[in-house]
Amino acid sequence: MPHILQEVHSDMFAIENLGKRTIPSPITARYFTGEKTRVLYNHHVPGYNEQSMTDGSPLSLECAGPRETIYYDPSQVHAAIVTCGGLCPGINDVIRAIVMALFFRYGVQKVTGIRYGFQGLIPDYGHKLCPLNPELVKDIHTIGGSILASSRGHQDIGIMVNTLIARKINVLFCIGGDGTMRAVELIHREVKKRNKKIALIGIPKTIDNDLSLIDRSFGFDTAISEVVKVIQCGHVESRGAPNGIGLVKIMGRESGFTVAYATLAQNDVNVALIPEAPFNLNGTGGFLDHIEKRLASRGHAVVLVAEGAGQHLCRNCSTVEMDTSGNVRLFNVGVFLKDAIETYFRTKGTEINLKYIDPSYIIRSVPANASDSIYCDLLGQYAVHAGMAGKTAMVVGLYRGEYVHLPLNAVTSRRKLNPQSNLWLRVLEATGQPSFC
Amino acid sequence: MPHILQEVHSDMFAIENLGKRTIPSPITARYFTGEKTRVLYNHHVPGYNEQSMTDGSPLSLECAGPRETIYYDPSQVHAAIVTCGGLCPGINDVIRAIVMALFFRYGVQKVTGIRYGFQGLIPDYGHKLCPLNPELVKDIHTIGGSILASSRGHQDIGIMVNTLIARKINVLFCIGGDGTMRAVELIHREVKKRNKKIALIGIPKTIDNDLSLIDRSFGFDTAISEVVKVIQCGHVESRGAPNGIGLVKIMGRESGFTVAYATLAQNDVNVALIPEAPFNLNGTGGFLDHIEKRLASRGHAVVLVAEGAGQHLCRNCSTVEMDTSGNVRLFNVGVFLKDAIETYFRTKGTEINLKYIDPSYIIRSVPANASDSIYCDLLGQYAVHAGMAGKTAMVVGLYRGEYVHLPLNAVTSRRKLNPQSNLWLRVLEATGQPSFC
Amino acid sequence: MPHILQEVHSDMFAIENLGKRTIPSPITARYFTGEKTRVLYNHHVPGYNEQSMTDGSPLSLECAGPRETIYYDPSQVHAAIVTCGGLCPGINDVIRAIVMALFFRYGVQKVTGIRYGFQGLIPDYGHKLCPLNPELVKDIHTIGGSILASSRGHQDIGIMVNTLIARKINVLFCIGGDGTMRAVELIHREVKKRNKKIALIGIPKTIDNDLSLIDRSFGFDTAISEVVKVIQCGHVESRGAPNGIGLVKIMGRESGFTVAYATLAQNDVNVALIPEAPFNLNGTGGFLDHIEKRLASRGHAVVLVAEGAGQHLCRNCSTVEMDTSGNVRLFNVGVFLKDAIETYFRTKGTEINLKYIDPSYIIRSVPANASDSIYCDLLGQYAVHAGMAGKTAMVVGLYRGEYVHLPLNAVTSRRKLNPQSNLWLRVLEATGQPSFC
Amino acid sequence: MPHILQEVHSDMFAIENLGKRTIPSPITARYFTGEKTRVLYNHHVPGYNEQSMTDGSPLSLECAGPRETIYYDPSQVHAAIVTCGGLCPGINDVIRAIVMALFFRYGVQKVTGIRYGFQGLIPDYGHKLCPLNPELVKDIHTIGGSILASSRGHQDIGIMVNTLIARKINVLFCIGGDGTMRAVELIHREVKKRNKKIALIGIPKTIDNDLSLIDRSFGFDTAISEVVKVIQCGHVESRGAPNGIGLVKIMGRESGFTVAYATLAQNDVNVALIPEAPFNLNGTGGFLDHIEKRLASRGHAVVLVAEGAGQHLCRNCSTVEMDTSGNVRLFNVGVFLKDAIETYFRTKGTEINLKYIDPSYIIRSVPANASDSIYCDLLGQYAVHAGMAGKTAMVVGLYRGEYVHLPLNAVTSRRKLNPQSNLWLRVLEATGQPSFC
Repeated sequence: MPHILQEVHSDMFAIENLGKRTIPSPITARYFTGEKTRVLYNHHVPGYNEQSMTDGSPLSLECAGPRETIYYDPSQVHAAIVTCGGLCPGINDVIRAIVMALFFRYGVQKVTGIRYGFQGLIPDYGHKLCPLNPELVKDIHTIGGSILASSRGHQDIGIMVNTLIARKINVLFCIGGDGTMRAVELIHREVKKRNKKIALIGIPKTIDNDLSLIDRSFGFDTAISEVVKVIQCGHVESRGAPNGIGLVKIMGRESGFTVAYATLAQNDVNVALIPEAPFNLNGTGGFLDHIEKRLASRGHAVVLVAEGAGQHLCRNCSTVEMDTSGNVRLFNVGVFLKDAIETYFRTKGTEINLKYIDPSYIIRSVPANASDSIYCDLLGQYAVHAGMAGKTAMVVGLYRGEYVHLPLNAVTSRRKLNPQSNLWLRVLEATGQPSFC
Repeated sequence: MPHILQEVHSDMFAIENLGKRTIPSPITARYFTGEKTRVLYNHHVPGYNEQSMTDGSPLSLECAGPRETIYYDPSQVHAAIVTCGGLCPGINDVIRAIVMALFFRYGVQKVTGIRYGFQGLIPDYGHKLCPLNPELVKDIHTIGGSILASSRGHQDIGIMVNTLIARKINVLFCIGGDGTMRAVELIHREVKKRNKKIALIGIPKTIDNDLSLIDRSFGFDTAISEVVKVIQCGHVESRGAPNGIGLVKIMGRESGFTVAYATLAQNDVNVALIPEAPFNLNGTGGFLDHIEKRLASRGHAVVLVAEGAGQHLCRNCSTVEMDTSGNVRLFNVGVFLKDAIETYFRTKGTEINLKYIDPSYIIRSVPANASDSIYCDLLGQYAVHAGMAGKTAMVVGLYRGEYVHLPLNAVTSRRKLNPQSNLWLRVLEATGQPSFC
Repeated sequence: MPHILQEVHSDMFAIENLGKRTIPSPITARYFTGEKTRVLYNHHVPGYNEQSMTDGSPLSLECAGPRETIYYDPSQVHAAIVTCGGLCPGINDVIRAIVMALFFRYGVQKVTGIRYGFQGLIPDYGHKLCPLNPELVKDIHTIGGSILASSRGHQDIGIMVNTLIARKINVLFCIGGDGTMRAVELIHREVKKRNKKIALIGIPKTIDNDLSLIDRSFGFDTAISEVVKVIQCGHVESRGAPNGIGLVKIMGRESGFTVAYATLAQNDVNVALIPEAPFNLNGTGGFLDHIEKRLASRGHAVVLVAEGAGQHLCRNCSTVEMDTSGNVRLFNVGVFLKDAIETYFRTKGTEINLKYIDPSYIIRSVPANASDSIYCDLLGQYAVHAGMAGKTAMVVGLYRGEYVHLPLNAVTSRRKLNPQSNLWLRVLEATGQPSFC
Repeated sequence: MPHILQEVHSDMFAIENLGKRTIPSPITARYFTGEKTRVLYNHHVPGYNEQSMTDGSPLSLECAGPRETIYYDPSQVHAAIVTCGGLCPGINDVIRAIVMALFFRYGVQKVTGIRYGFQGLIPDYGHKLCPLNPELVKDIHTIGGSILASSRGHQDIGIMVNTLIARKINVLFCIGGDGTMRAVELIHREVKKRNKKIALIGIPKTIDNDLSLIDRSFGFDTAISEVVKVIQCGHVESRGAPNGIGLVKIMGRESGFTVAYATLAQNDVNVALIPEAPFNLNGTGGFLDHIEKRLASRGHAVVLVAEGAGQHLCRNCSTVEMDTSGNVRLFNVGVFLKDAIETYFRTKGTEINLKYIDPSYIIRSVPANASDSIYCDLLGQYAVHAGMAGKTAMVVGLYRGEYVHLPLNAVTSRRKLNPQSNLWLRVLEATGQPSFC
C-alpha cells in the first residue's frame, strides 16, 4: 500500500500536456475518461481534505484512460519503446500491450523497438532499431526477460534527443526504474528546449516494489512466488543436517518489501533481515546469539536477507563505489553473514551446516504469472492512451486500485518499509525473531 | 475494481458492536486502528462527497485493524471456525491465520473447528468438533481445500444457536459465500433475540470474484492461473486437428469475471461467453456463424464459456430447479454448445474436431499461490481483530486497497460484469469476437 | 518393463533393408553401430537362449544407431514427417530431433511436414505441405501438441503412395499408434508392389504405454505427472465434504498402466479400476459395497478409473460402434459409475458428495517434461539413422535400455497389465482395495 | 546406460547371505522371485557369453524380488534406516517405501530412524533414535530432503556396531553415496568379526548419476527438470543485455552426466563443460576465444559448467584439501570462469554483461517428481525383500530395466562420461562448441 508522503504541495500531481487535443479518438471505448476525472490523494476519514490544490479542492491525481479527443493523428505517429535497467517479470507483457493497443485501438502503423536500453539511441553503439508489430509480439509474454534487451548506465542526453528527432519518433515509452525516470526527465527538458513535441511516457519498473505512490510494481507478485520456492529449499536444507542453517539472500537494495512479503507467504523463515532495520551482529540479543539459541532449541534455522540489509556492518566501506547506473555498489551481506556465522560457531567448536543460497537472476528472469500478466497488459494500454492524448513527462501507475497519471518525479523517490509498521510487526511475529538491537 | 452501488443510504455501512470495549489489548501492535478511522466510499473527484452520512460527512467505511481496547477477555474466549459452500484456494490459509492470530496475538487458548459447514452445528449429523491449535494448523496452507471440510444446504437456525450457546462459543468465524452470509444474518438475529453476545464475523468467499464492494475475492488469483493452463491445453488441442475447436467451460454462475480475466491473461481465446452478455446461437453474426468463419480463415478456434452463460438458450427450462444450497441449477451450457457445434457442422458436412474440456474441480482445489496466501493471511488476522473488538454481523474485506469492516448485507448482493465496460471491451478486442447480437 | 511374448518365431525380429549401403556416412560419430550388433530378446538366466534364430543363435533384436555406410545420398533425400492419431506430450520434440539430425548430421536439405496426419497425403483435402528446417523447429519442443497437427481415420493407400511418389519423398517418418503402424505396413506393401524405394520409419506413440516390446512410450512420464496433480485435486475434493468421493477418469482404453503407475506415484487413490481386472459393481465385496464401507470408516474415497475399465457393465452395448480410426467406441464408464454411486446412496438415503473429474485433453496436451524431452530427442535421431541406412517397415524403440529396430508388426499388438503381476499387486496394496470379484 | 566394466571376474556379482531361509514369507506376492533368477551382465550379441562364472554359465546378476522363504522371523526384526551424505530428491520416498513394506507386507513392527546419518549411531552426539511407522511416513514424499536428516564424515566403526548390537538392530538400510557404501562394507566386516547377523542393505544415492552398473540414480530425473528451469533463466538473462553471458554452475563433481542430459533437454546451452573433457582457456580455439566469437556473431552465450570441470586450471591447487566426508575440495570453477571471462573482455575494452548463476541447493532439495517417486518406491520395496531374505553387504539397483542385487563394491567406483561417446558427441552437436583442445 502506498505511503502518504511527508511533503506535499498543491500542484505536485499536475501532468504536462503537449498541446490541445483536437482529434476525435478512433477507439471504440464506450466510456472515455474525462480529463477532469481524478482520485483523491488521501481517501481516509479524517484526512482526505487536509491537503488541497490551488483551486481549494482536495489534493488528487489525474485518472488514466482513453480520452475522447486525442493530440496525435495516429497516421503521423512514430512510437518507440525502450527497456532499461535490470530484468523483471512482465516487461514483455508491457511491450506486447503497447504494440497491440497502438495498432489495434489507434491504428498506429509505425512502432519501433529500441535495443539495449538507452544505448539503442546512441548511434555509436551500432545497435539496430527493430520494427515491432502485432505478429512479432503476440507470443512474447510467454518468455521472461525483454525481447528488446536492456542496458545500464548514463548516455548522452543530447545525442539521444538527436536520434529521436532524426527518426521522427514522437511518442516514446520508457520501461525502467527510478534512474531511467530521471533520465526521461532530462530528455524531456532537452526536447522542450528544442521546441519539439515528443510524448515521454514512463512505465515504472522495480522488482523491489518500493515505488512511492504505486500500489505494487509489476513483476513483484511473480517474484514473490519464486522466492517462496527458494525459501522452501532453504528450509529443507536446514532440516537435513545437524544444526542446519539455510541462508537465502534475495533482492532488496534499499527496501525490504520482498523479504517481508515472502516471509508472510512462506512461514518457514526464522530470521528476516532488511535494509530498514539495522541489527547487531554480536552481543546478547544480537543476530548470532539468536541463531545459537534457535539451533539449541530447534536444531535448524532459515535466514532470509535482503541484499541491502546490514550494510552498516561493512568495516571497509568508507568509500562508496557506484556501478554504471550510478547505484551504490553493495557489499555482499550474504557472504558476509555466511562467514560470520561459520566463524562464530567454529570458534565455539559447534558443528553447523550452513547452506548459502543466492538465487539471484533465477527470480527475475521467469515469465510473469497470470496476475502480473493482466496488470502489465493494463499498464501498457494506459500508457498508450496517455501518449496518444499528448501527455508527457509522466508515468502510469496503480494508485489505490485506480490507474492514474503521475509526474515523473513522483516515482523517483523510493518507498521504505517502516520498521514500526504493522507489516514489519507481522513479519516479526511470523519469524519469532527479536529486534536484534 | 468495486462498483459504486446504485442505491446508498446514509447508515448503510454502520457496523454493530456487542458492547463497550474495556479490556486493554494484549497485542503488541505499534499502531492501533482508531475506531473512527474510515475510508471514503467514493474517492473520485468529482463524486467523493455526493453521498453523505447522517452527520453530514461523506459516506465512508470503517477501517479494520487492531483496537487499543477490546471487548473480550481472551481467557474467556471460545472461538470457532466454520467453512461453508464450495471449495476455493486459500480457505486453509484463512483458517491458519485465524488460529495463529488468536493464539499468538491475543492469547486465546480455546479454538474449535466445526466440521462440514453448518452441519457441524447440528448434533444429529454426529460430526465431532475439532480442537484447533498452532501446531495442528501450521502447515495446512500447503494443501488445497478445507481441513474442516464444508457442506451446502440450509440448517435449522435455532438448533445451530443452541449448539453455539451449549458449547459457550462466543466468537464465530464463518468462511462462505453470499448464502452463508444470509445464514449468518439469521443466526445473528436469533442470537440477539436470546440476548446472547456472540461475535459473528464473516470472511466472504467466492471463486467467481463477484462480490460487490470487495476488490477481489481470495482464491481468484490462483484460479485464474489454473484456468490459464487449461486454456493453453485447449489451444494446443484446437491446433492439433483439422478444424480443431477447443471448448473450455469454467466457473462463473452469474458473472463472467473469471472468463474475462483469464482471456486477458492468456491471449489464445477466440470467443469468450459470459452470463452478462447473451448471444445468438444461430443466424448471421451469431455464435455458430462466427465459429464457421473463424475455422474457414484460421483453421481452429478456442471458446471459453462461463457455466452461467447462455442460460437463455435452454428451451425446456421453464421450471427453475434449486440445489441444496438454494442455488438455481444451471443447464449445462458446455455440453449444449458442444452438441450445437457438432450438429451444425455435421449438417453442413464439414469435418470438425471438437475437444470439450470441463476442468471443474481441478481449478478450485489447488493450494493458494503466494499472492492469495498473503491476502488470506491478512483477512484472517483482520477477522480476529474484529471479533476480539466485539464487532458482529459483519465481514472483513479489501476496499480500494484498505481492509475494512462491511455489514453482512453489503456482500449478499452480487456484482455483474457490465458488458458496456472497458473490461469487457478489452476482452472483445483480445478475442476479436463480434457481439453475437 | 516389456513382456516376454507368448509366441515367438525364429525370424520375427528381422528388419527389411531397401538395398546395399554403399555411401560413406557423412556424420561425425566416433562409434558406429555395426549392422550385426544386437541385443538378446531375453536376458534372463535361465531363459536367454530358449528361443533361437534360424542360425541357431539366441533370439535377438537389431540395435539402432548410425551405420558407417548408408543407403541414401543425402543430397538426393526428400524426407517427410507425418503425425497421426491423438496428441501426446513429446511429438514436437520428435519432429524437432528428426529435422535437426537430417540437416546437421546428414546434410539433408529437403524435409517436408505433412499436415493433419495421413489426410495431408490426400490431395482432395487441400492441406498444404509445409517445408521444415532447423530455424522453424528450434523452439517447438516448448509447446504441446503437434505443429503438423494430426488426424484420425483411414485414407486410401494408393492415393497416399501416389503423393509420396509425385513429391519424390523417399524417407517417410510416421509418428503414430498401432493403427498408424498398420497403415504404414499397407503403404509399405503398395510401395514394394510399385517397385519403389521409400524408407518407412515409424516412431510408435501411445499415451497408454501399452506397446509390446517397448520399455515405455514417449509422453507417458509426462502424462503420469499430470495425472498425479489431478488425483491430488480429487483427494482434496473428497475430503472437503461429508462422504466426499473424488471420481477421476483418465486414459487407458485397453490397458491400465497409467492408472497403475499414477496410483503408485500418488498414494491417495483408494480404488483403482482397469480394463484388465473386471469387477462386480453390486453385491457383498463388490465396488459399491466397498465404497460404502470406506465412507463409513474413513468418510471419503478417491476412485481412479481407466476409460476402458468396466466395459462389461454396459447393458446396451451389444452392437460395437467404431470411431473414424476404427477404435471401438467405449461406453463412458466415468459417467456410468457416477450415476451408479449416486443412485446407490440415494436409495439408501445416505448423503454423499461425488465430484467427477474428467481431465481428458488436459493430460495429453502439455509439453514434454525433461525426461521425455531427452527420450524423444533420441528416438528422433535413431529414426533418422535408420532411414538414412535404408531400413524400412520398422519402428525405433527402447528395449531393456537399448535403442533397437523392431518390425512394424511387433508394435501393432498391445500389451496388457497382468492382474496377477507384482505391479498390480502393489497397486492393490497401495489402495487397500479387494478384488471386487 | 550402464557401462560394461573393464575388468570383470567370475564371482564379482556374488551376494552374501546371512544364512538359510527357512521361514515362509508372509507376503501375498503371486510371483516370488527364484533365488536362481538372474539377468545377464552383458545382453549384447556378440558378447553376452564372453565372460563366464565359475560354473561356466555367462556372467549374470542376481534378481531382486520377494523370496518364497525368508531368513528373518518378522516378529524378531528390528529394522533401522539411515540417510548419509548430501540431499537428493526422493530420499523420503525411499524411507516411506521401506517402512510401508516392512509393516504391511512383512508385518514387522519395529522400525527405527537413525537421525543425522552415521552420527546417529554414535551415542556421544546425543541424537535420539526416532521410531517410524506408516502413519508418520505416509505423506513424507511430498516434501524434499530427508526426514531423518543426514550428515557427512567418518564415524568410528566399532562404536556404530556397538550401537547396532545394543539396540538389537538386525536389518539396517543405508541410503547414501559411494563413501557411505565403503563405510557399510567396514561395518559389515566388523559385524562378521563379532559373529553377529545383521543384514546390511544399501540404496545407492548420487545426484550425479555416475554409479557404475546402475541405469540411473534416483533423483536424477527430478534434478534435470530443475536444471532445465535454471538454464532457461540463464538464457533469458544472456539475451537481456549487450553481450550477455549466462554462466550456470551445477553439480557434477567427477562426472558430467547432469550437464550432458540437461544440455540435451534444454537446447539453449552454447557451451557445456564437464570434468571428463579438459579444455584450454586461452589461445585460438580455447574457451575464451570461442566465447568472443559467439558474442560477435550472436550477441549472447549460455555456459553450463559442472562443478568438477576445469580443475586442471587451478594454479594454486598443489595441495589437495578434503572435506569431512573425504571428498576432495574442489576449487570454484564457476567463480574462476566468471573472473576469467570478465578480465578477458575488460582487457579488450569490450562491454559484456555476465550473469553468474549458482543454483546449488535449489536443485537437490525439491520433492521427487512422479517418475522418481515410483522408482524410489520400488527401490525401497526391493531393499526390504532383500533384507528379509537375509541378504547382506549389497545394494539394490536397476540394471537394464531389471531390479538386481549388487555387491557393495560394485557401486563404490564411479562411472565417467566418455568424451568419445555418442552421448558427448550429441552434446557437442547441440551446443555447436569445438573441443577447446
